[in-house]
Amino acid sequence: MNNVLIEKYANLIVNVGANVQKGQIVDISSSLENAWLAEIIMEKCYQAGAKFVSIQWVNDKTSVIAYKYASLDVLKEIKPYTRARLEWLTDNKVVRIHIDDDDPNAFKDVDSEKMAESSKDISKLAKDLFDKIEGEYQWCIAAAPSKKWAKQVFPNDTEEEAVQKLWNMIFKMCRIDEATDELALWKEHNDKLVNRCKFLNDLDLEYVQYKNSLGTNLKVYLADGHIWQGGKNITKQGIDYLPNIPTEEVFSTPHAYKVDGTLVSTFPLNYNGVLIKDMRFTFKDGKVIDFSASEGQDTLKHMLNMDENANRLGEIALVPYNNPINNSKTLFYSTLFDENASCHFAFGECYNDTIKNYEKYSKEELNKKGCNNSIIHVDFMVGSSDLSIIGHTKKGEDVVIFENGNFAFEK
Amino acid sequence: MNNVLIEKYANLIVNVGANVQKGQIVDISSSLENAWLAEIIMEKCYQAGAKFVSIQWVNDKTSVIAYKYASLDVLKEIKPYTRARLEWLTDNKVVRIHIDDDDPNAFKDVDSEKMAESSKDISKLAKDLFDKIEGEYQWCIAAAPSKKWAKQVFPNDTEEEAVQKLWNMIFKMCRIDEATDELALWKEHNDKLVNRCKFLNDLDLEYVQYKNSLGTNLKVYLADGHIWQGGKNITKQGIDYLPNIPTEEVFSTPHAYKVDGTLVSTFPLNYNGVLIKDMRFTFKDGKVIDFSASEGQDTLKHMLNMDENANRLGEIALVPYNNPINNSKTLFYSTLFDENASCHFAFGECYNDTIKNYEKYSKEELNKKGCNNSIIHVDFMVGSSDLSIIGHTKKGEDVVIFENGNFAFEK
Repeated sequence: MNNVLIEKYANLIVNVGANVQKGQIVDISSSLENAWLAEIIMEKCYQAGAKFVSIQWVNDKTSVIAYKYASLDVLKEIKPYTRARLEWLTDNKVVRIHIDDDDPNAFKDVDSEKMAESSKDISKLAKDLFDKIEGEYQWCIAAAPSKKWAKQVFPNDTEEEAVQKLWNMIFKMCRIDEATDELALWKEHNDKLVNRCKFLNDLDLEYVQYKNSLGTNLKVYLADGHIWQGGKNITKQGIDYLPNIPTEEVFSTPHAYKVDGTLVSTFPLNYNGVLIKDMRFTFKDGKVIDFSASEGQDTLKHMLNMDENANRLGEIALVPYNNPINNSKTLFYSTLFDENASCHFAFGECYNDTIKNYEKYSKEELNKKGCNNSIIHVDFMVGSSDLSIIGHTKKGEDVVIFENGNFAFEK
Repeated sequence: MNNVLIEKYANLIVNVGANVQKGQIVDISSSLENAWLAEIIMEKCYQAGAKFVSIQWVNDKTSVIAYKYASLDVLKEIKPYTRARLEWLTDNKVVRIHIDDDDPNAFKDVDSEKMAESSKDISKLAKDLFDKIEGEYQWCIAAAPSKKWAKQVFPNDTEEEAVQKLWNMIFKMCRIDEATDELALWKEHNDKLVNRCKFLNDLDLEYVQYKNSLGTNLKVYLADGHIWQGGKNITKQGIDYLPNIPTEEVFSTPHAYKVDGTLVSTFPLNYNGVLIKDMRFTFKDGKVIDFSASEGQDTLKHMLNMDENANRLGEIALVPYNNPINNSKTLFYSTLFDENASCHFAFGECYNDTIKNYEKYSKEELNKKGCNNSIIHVDFMVGSSDLSIIGHTKKGEDVVIFENGNFAFEK
């Protein structure tokens, strides 16, 4: 492990990603395997002035054992200490850092219906609590290799080599190297994302039309009052933060009730540790009315049935085909990377803060504008080298947004 | 790692130690390093019929970082989720299994006063809650090597070799090998401990007099109505369990106000990760009125001042000098082993269930009988090869209990 690069990476996570401020409380969630990184990040949070840093240890293996043996009733029951922890996180507007190192196959042998059912109530509670503080806390998700994840990405290497290779990839994707100033590089990259948002926001789009040779032919209206965002977010208190490291996307809210046509996925989706491949969806009035997958169809079905709006879109995101993650020609089996390799959508909950003055509207008013409400938010990738996106503005003009997979205006 | 031995060991912990029953809830506390063992134990708990198994991950390194940076006020504050968890454990009379692999030096660089102060309130809350369900839940502490602990025991070996050696020692001390039936061996050993208790209980002692060549010369009255216990415990619901694996001791409650003379320790004490060596205590009317240590005197001072009765005895335990742990001639730097190598006492809280019909008495009544109340319970070793213990019975007879470090009646 290169300690200089780890230092720079942890710095980026704490001081740009979460942007921890003096006196704040921070919660880090991490696997046991990457505890060493969580410890480095924890110390940096304190050095940035955090008042208290709690750690939530995540261990897939004990979850798998619980899913195997415990009854659904027992698993569904929200333990009082879990509820107390969620309330504490939200009451204190705790800054949240998540180290993502999921084994894409961790839950492949688990009954997907039992798993989905047992998490419904706790997901609902968490959503209700975090909805109340939307836009009032910083959060950041960044990656670290686990042995199993690394072996999935580099199956022909030993565990140790695979982990090292994946670290090298992560550093590269995250613009971390010894010679350059990662904070300056991230500023430049952020400016580029902001520029794309400006271009899209100036167009004032009514709908976009996706087409490619795989069969995608989809018309997606944007939610009323939508705005495109990318790069840094800013809390209501005025603290900017970078929710995802890395990030290559600009995104907004599609209209939950105005999506029609066919959409074909271009990357496998890792949902709760199960891989879903070659998805095809037919939309009518915003709702999936037909779907298929060559693998993981059962899991996909459970996902789309998590609640009544889990089968409607909550995010639209544009990523040029020519970008460092896609150029690595590596399938990462991780949404954090793969979503940033490619144009994507998400099923489920939308980001209300991509609606102009969203804080002035009630949930019902936002829903009328096209904002989707769900306990899930699951990204899936649809970008391809021949993807074309035509934008139709409210003024009635057609504008080429994507041509052969990339932003047309950046050529 | 020998999987057969690990299986046998985990079986012993779950089915003899904690003796998990159908429908019970179990909580396992484990370090991250020994998560693999916690997972095996967790699965065995479910196989024994547990309804739900929760895991509490313990990580000394993040605690050390918190002690370094967070303020005492922040550390002292009992987080609502911690309180909720303690209440859940006690409301449900949850069975508790602790995997002990403490690094004896984990907290050596931490401000011992800050550490002691920050745990006072939570210790008090935990004591109050667990007092309410005394005798109503099973618990078991068993060991597993951590790299740091193993290196402390075997400093001249590599980490890997030290861990393997310590595992071999643990298996041996715990009577686990491939050829023999560990459950039969534990039954035989338990019968021997029960026999010692019968001998001591039949004597009906008033006080015991300890003497050896190191300077120990101590008169200890037993609490009124005391009984000697050893081996298996039994809950009020009638479930037997083995609180410590291994165990070689028989123990009872000394009179908190009737201890006089000099007591010299014979093993170092590991308290909160700090080693305290060569302790000497002078007692008057049950209280330590003078003490010294060649190392860790500060920590010892904080320990004895944790509350007003932390400097009185709460346990008296007899262990023959000739026993497998002591015969290994290994200093384990772990109370679980070292206390079972040697006669010992504990400062602090007594075990009320070593008083006849303890459940019929109030706290005040028990205290009048000589039962000590404190938030700490810390064992320290006083056995030696020349230790003699003379018992003075209520009938006025003097009986030799220990001669040259061993039970005289077993010669």
